[in-house]
Amino acid sequence: MSAAHPIVITLTTDFGTADGYVGAMKGRLLSICPDAVLCDITHAIAPQHLWQAAWCLRRAVPHFPPGTVHLCVVDPGVGSARSGLVLQTERYLLVGPDNGVLTLAARDDRLLRAIEIDETSGAWRKSHSFDGLHLFAPVAAHLAAGMPLEEVGPEAEDLEHLPEREPAVQGNVVEGAIVLIDRYGNAISNIARRHVESRHIERVFLASGQEVMLCDHYAQIAGAQRPGALFNSDDLLEIALYGDSAHERLHLREGESVRVLLRQR
Amino acid sequence: MSAAHPIVITLTTDFGTADGYVGAMKGRLLSICPDAVLCDITHAIAPQHLWQAAWCLRRAVPHFPPGTVHLCVVDPGVGSARSGLVLQTERYLLVGPDNGVLTLAARDDRLLRAIEIDETSGAWRKSHSFDGLHLFAPVAAHLAAGMPLEEVGPEAEDLEHLPEREPAVQGNVVEGAIVLIDRYGNAISNIARRHVESRHIERVFLASGQEVMLCDHYAQIAGAQRPGALFNSDDLLEIALYGDSAHERLHLREGESVRVLLRQR
Amino acid sequence: MSAAHPIVITLTTDFGTADGYVGAMKGRLLSICPDAVLCDITHAIAPQHLWQAAWCLRRAVPHFPPGTVHLCVVDPGVGSARSGLVLQTERYLLVGPDNGVLTLAARDDRLLRAIEIDETSGAWRKSHSFDGLHLFAPVAAHLAAGMPLEEVGPEAEDLEHLPEREPAVQGNVVEGAIVLIDRYGNAISNIARRHVESRHIERVFLASGQEVMLCDHYAQIAGAQRPGALFNSDDLLEIALYGDSAHERLHLREGESVRVLLRQR
Repeated sequence: MSAAHPIVITLTTDFGTADGYVGAMKGRLLSICPDAVLCDITHAIAPQHLWQAAWCLRRAVPHFPPGTVHLCVVDPGVGSARSGLVLQTERYLLVGPDNGVLTLAARDDRLLRAIEIDETSGAWRKSHSFDGLHLFAPVAAHLAAGMPLEEVGPEAEDLEHLPEREPAVQGNVVEGAIVLIDRYGNAISNIARRHVESRHIERVFLASGQEVMLCDHYAQIAGAQRPGALFNSDDLLEIALYGDSAHERLHLREGESVRVLLRQR
Repeated sequence: MSAAHPIVITLTTDFGTADGYVGAMKGRLLSICPDAVLCDITHAIAPQHLWQAAWCLRRAVPHFPPGTVHLCVVDPGVGSARSGLVLQTERYLLVGPDNGVLTLAARDDRLLRAIEIDETSGAWRKSHSFDGLHLFAPVAAHLAAGMPLEEVGPEAEDLEHLPEREPAVQGNVVEGAIVLIDRYGNAISNIARRHVESRHIERVFLASGQEVMLCDHYAQIAGAQRPGALFNSDDLLEIALYGDSAHERLHLREGESVRVLLRQR
Repeated sequence: MSAAHPIVITLTTDFGTADGYVGAMKGRLLSICPDAVLCDITHAIAPQHLWQAAWCLRRAVPHFPPGTVHLCVVDPGVGSARSGLVLQTERYLLVGPDNGVLTLAARDDRLLRAIEIDETSGAWRKSHSFDGLHLFAPVAAHLAAGMPLEEVGPEAEDLEHLPEREPAVQGNVVEGAIVLIDRYGNAISNIARRHVESRHIERVFLASGQEVMLCDHYAQIAGAQRPGALFNSDDLLEIALYGDSAHERLHLREGESVRVLLRQR
């Protein structure tokens, strides 16, 4: 963490912006830590879609400068007993509810400490309906302003995790599923390159039984004018159509199966 | 207003971002006041929805550092004779059209001065179609850069106000209305805690005649699996469904009645 | 370019924000150039709508401080052989794919140099699926941090241009077309004031044969309560309805004809 540069606080929520809740949080952040550089990741997470938020964070977080504070409020359990959490990884601090959204996002960096936010602190408070403003934003801002992690609360005991969605690998078959639809209608599966290792992919099938060709990059899909599958920039197998939405054209939905046949060893 | 920190200028519009109008305004702000910290509140106000913009501002504005300049351009009357306005409250400056959007937003802070923007100034000008760029952004940027308020124009005489939407309280009945639907489909009424004072709420009815139970927080609604009413973080009575849109499920719309029965004194 | 103020990097994409790609790019920009001021123009360009992106940029770019780096990633050809480009104009640097989106945006400023990004540089790399992160963001950030343009690559030879959409002027008739629908449903044509010069416009017709009245400003349309045509803040003839969407009410679409009859000379 360079002392020469101001601390970046990123924001990831499912609040949209038109209701003013995000504005309130930004105001609070700047009031507590006027030197912070606020950086929107997104406020367009589908309401309470923890999985989308976790993936969004996981894509974005590794590229920020060390020391960045990532504030994420996607929180179906606001008002309930779920705790607030700060995760410290080798490079970052993540602040948000203890509902699994942070643990997935932090998975690619080494987790150093997990702190449960002490809700009785005078610097923030638990809220009936808007922990983003009263609890999480103040914690993030105070950390960005230099508050030691110890003052936020005690070590967290059990962290919540989102249900694992790992593909099943059996013999020559990798049985995965679509986990996300992106803005272009590309359908992203949970089949990563590591599930295939160095083995040759022979065929890729959708839940409908339709076969899609394996491609190296988008331009190949363009040339063929039919759907293709390729490992995307996250190294996940993705079903795509050139200049069109695979989601809409092929009626693909989250949760549907994607099956890969590998060459016999 | 601390001299040590750069001035924040917030932006609230109904322009969306894809047309480039907001980009143009940001460029103008940074050209006139390069040290300003620009902070988007929203550009997703429904086109010309003054009431939504005013509420959004009112939620966000109180949390910003003193001295912040809040620029709001939701302006059905662009090109007409309506004036431009700067409101100075104890903590802020608000800049935008004199159509009521600023006066509601400023209502929670003490109003010190109201200035009518002098359109004949050389530093900005009236526009046929884009006062956001030619009139309001320059005023906001010059104020952020230190221009004294007196140079913006004369004292404003009559300020426009949005029509009051106060609930009617008669005996044991508070007759209110839904004033806003938020992103989650929660229906927010104009019934504030102060309308009920310390009296006990016995029952809450929607326009359809359906009764909804009164709750203390969202988690209670979750447990009951049916719609509930609770005082939200703005202390307004809100109709909500756990994990679903009350707006869609209950067909609630802005303007519809919400009726509260109080216990006999 | 003032040394006293940090360099602004603007971002214009069709990525939306919810997938985290924009977040990743912002992280990368701040990691390479921590002093840069990031400024969103938009991430809401319709997927791969080059023309909309070019217009958005063209509206916004002229208002930014000299020295601003404008990063634009709307890139149907990602993964193909199309080059990356840096355009240096009298006041700006524009960074993005060589597909016409930058050349239109740069058209209002004097073009000094066009550089083809050398993809073999160690500071960035060509990507199968996400040049925004691996190629364009690093180039923009290194330029903002002071890298000389010569180190980015060689002079570009042939620049791609978007197909011209100029109206046909013949005698007293200007035959134009709707080129964009904006957020309010206003239909913007390619008929600029210069096509009409100082001649008097007698009548304006839509493709349906419907005539619309020529107005000086929006307030006139409001008074008349029917659709009007006016030269907007870009000096382009625009079809608008007061408080409503001309696009929806009049069923106007991109590409449809707009015809102007001029007074006989």
